[in-house]
Amino acid sequence: MTILVINAGSSSVKYQLFDMQQQSSLATGLIDRIGEPGAPVASHQQALEQMVEHLKSSGLLTSLDQLSAVGHRVVHGGEQFRQPMLIDDDVINTIRRVVPLAPLHNPAHLKGIEVMQRLCPQVPQVAVFDTAFHQTMPDYAFHYPLPIQYYREYKVRRYGFHGTSHHYVAKQAAEFLDTPIESLNLITLHLGNGCSAAAIQAGRCIDTSMGMTPLEGLMMGTRCGDIDPALHFYLLRKADLTTEQLEKILNKESGLKGICGCSDMREVSEKAAQGDDSARLAREMFAYRIKKTIGSYYAALGRVDGIIFTGGIGEHDAGLRELICSGLEGLGISIAPANADTPSDQIQPLHSGDSRVQILAIPTNEELEIARCAQQLVGSADH
Amino acid sequence: MTILVINAGSSSVKYQLFDMQQQSSLATGLIDRIGEPGAPVASHQQALEQMVEHLKSSGLLTSLDQLSAVGHRVVHGGEQFRQPMLIDDDVINTIRRVVPLAPLHNPAHLKGIEVMQRLCPQVPQVAVFDTAFHQTMPDYAFHYPLPIQYYREYKVRRYGFHGTSHHYVAKQAAEFLDTPIESLNLITLHLGNGCSAAAIQAGRCIDTSMGMTPLEGLMMGTRCGDIDPALHFYLLRKADLTTEQLEKILNKESGLKGICGCSDMREVSEKAAQGDDSARLAREMFAYRIKKTIGSYYAALGRVDGIIFTGGIGEHDAGLRELICSGLEGLGISIAPANADTPSDQIQPLHSGDSRVQILAIPTNEELEIARCAQQLVGSADH
Repeated sequence: MTILVINAGSSSVKYQLFDMQQQSSLATGLIDRIGEPGAPVASHQQALEQMVEHLKSSGLLTSLDQLSAVGHRVVHGGEQFRQPMLIDDDVINTIRRVVPLAPLHNPAHLKGIEVMQRLCPQVPQVAVFDTAFHQTMPDYAFHYPLPIQYYREYKVRRYGFHGTSHHYVAKQAAEFLDTPIESLNLITLHLGNGCSAAAIQAGRCIDTSMGMTPLEGLMMGTRCGDIDPALHFYLLRKADLTTEQLEKILNKESGLKGICGCSDMREVSEKAAQGDDSARLAREMFAYRIKKTIGSYYAALGRVDGIIFTGGIGEHDAGLRELICSGLEGLGISIAPANADTPSDQIQPLHSGDSRVQILAIPTNEELEIARCAQQLVGSADH
Repeated sequence: MTILVINAGSSSVKYQLFDMQQQSSLATGLIDRIGEPGAPVASHQQALEQMVEHLKSSGLLTSLDQLSAVGHRVVHGGEQFRQPMLIDDDVINTIRRVVPLAPLHNPAHLKGIEVMQRLCPQVPQVAVFDTAFHQTMPDYAFHYPLPIQYYREYKVRRYGFHGTSHHYVAKQAAEFLDTPIESLNLITLHLGNGCSAAAIQAGRCIDTSMGMTPLEGLMMGTRCGDIDPALHFYLLRKADLTTEQLEKILNKESGLKGICGCSDMREVSEKAAQGDDSARLAREMFAYRIKKTIGSYYAALGRVDGIIFTGGIGEHDAGLRELICSGLEGLGISIAPANADTPSDQIQPLHSGDSRVQILAIPTNEELEIARCAQQLVGSADH
């Protein structure tokens, strides 16, 4: 069984071809700068045709009809989608209805879906939503303390993102710990370019740190995460900014970059190791906010069996993981001293012998998870 | 020793006269609607003269010179003031310099100070700052993940408020527990009209939930507390609001009021008990956000010895305290079943026998704390 996974962004297409028997990647590709001046590719149609050329010329496929399914990453599923969906006109219309919640992403995903439907009308297409896993949050966790009509009229609520990753690593953890996920309470930390945490009770998400948008929650490379909601008004007046400028600053000039000038944690760590105090501060702020989130989800879950680190930073930055977990022994969380040369392509247990809570680094693989979701759906639809 | 405490707001003056030998209140008063059309009192000068009339006619004072000190509540001390200050020209100038951080409050406090200096130039005046107790926060706790020049140029950082109350109840707790405050880690919850939490390590504040302004943190009567920082941009566009309207909505139409239409927790609880689902939701959101804050401060402190409830809601709403603490047994926090008719004018232990963490309800008394601060300062200044 061969499944193609597509992540169609506003100016890029990422794709990966999977052999589902082996659970392995056969090919991967990225086409970017779509539609930009001077770029070789003018449209998503052209980009996806180029992808097909690549898959054929490399001998992996002779026809798209050999695919068992195409899995599409879709950022926003609103409140409608609680799980992956076999795409039909209803699903497309619903993805279109939630465009206001993801004005950059969802239109691009729709383009990707429409083109693939034209290119291989016989192949079932599946949509896998970043928000779906979080739809199990209770109402007191997903509502904001705002006038309730903003929820009713404009769908203002916490949705959460990175759901495919949180769900994937939670299932990986259950398998690694040889325990049914229904018996586990986990805190999953996806720390990459974007960062988010999730509280997972018996396999169901009960809270997550990203909100209506991916700007809320943890400190990130260039995104601020949580700040005082009155700062906007102060900054608009004091720094004489337009709302558009402020929105861009909170998304692109804040986080690690705002504090120490660089957004890549590897660089930040190097600068900090060389004694740069702004890098030290950025790193400590980053870690402290994660530490507090672990505590808050501990309180929400009541009992925690495992803490999962994933994403580029979570999988690789042993020093940061120690900074995050230090001082949490009172919560039964005790991390072993970092081993600098641990392998990073497999699950690593990180807790010390006396830790009540298991601490694991688990490589995430959102594309594989999307392929698995697609496999499950077309399997159950008898393809 | 007699000390007068004054809280001069933008359109009101609250005052209280204390007998420091007895630590008791001799008189209290409120003059409001200052300067409003048709109000009997046109200025802070007139309001404070009326106060003096009241104190003289009631036979408590024959002259203001009988006062050992006047203590002024000052909301914002910026980064300059880490403790109460004997007022001189330098102190006044510094309070004036931080007016941009508290544009409604600090100018009113300055008026109160200036009038009292004219009315009793011989009596020492002391300023007690809402922000001072929180000035011990480490840099990684008080900085926001924003461009660092906003801190340097505009003093954007977490200051925290209600410091006088958090400090007062922490000292009361230490006394009640017969343990030096230096040996205690406490989480204090000031739940009143405004709500804030503080993490207090060995008597020093290491984190607090209000931030640059009193809008951040917990859900309040009409204030939203923490929300997604991108919501502002979405709402400005979607609901077609001006930034001024949005600022007012987040401060005056959100929180409990936004979710269920009323801002008074007593009313919300009644409605919830009668089966109103929006009141149930408001109450659960309110409690859940406090529960998560307890967890996050647990992680920040490493070890917690006591949780202190104070403020109108914190001191009186036993059902809400149970809702907040339920499920925290894994953190060593176990609250006893509520006793509906507990007295409320004294310290109440609330934990069950097997709770590792002491849970106390402690009536706050910011005015008495201001008087004590003034007493200490004039004592040390040999008055």
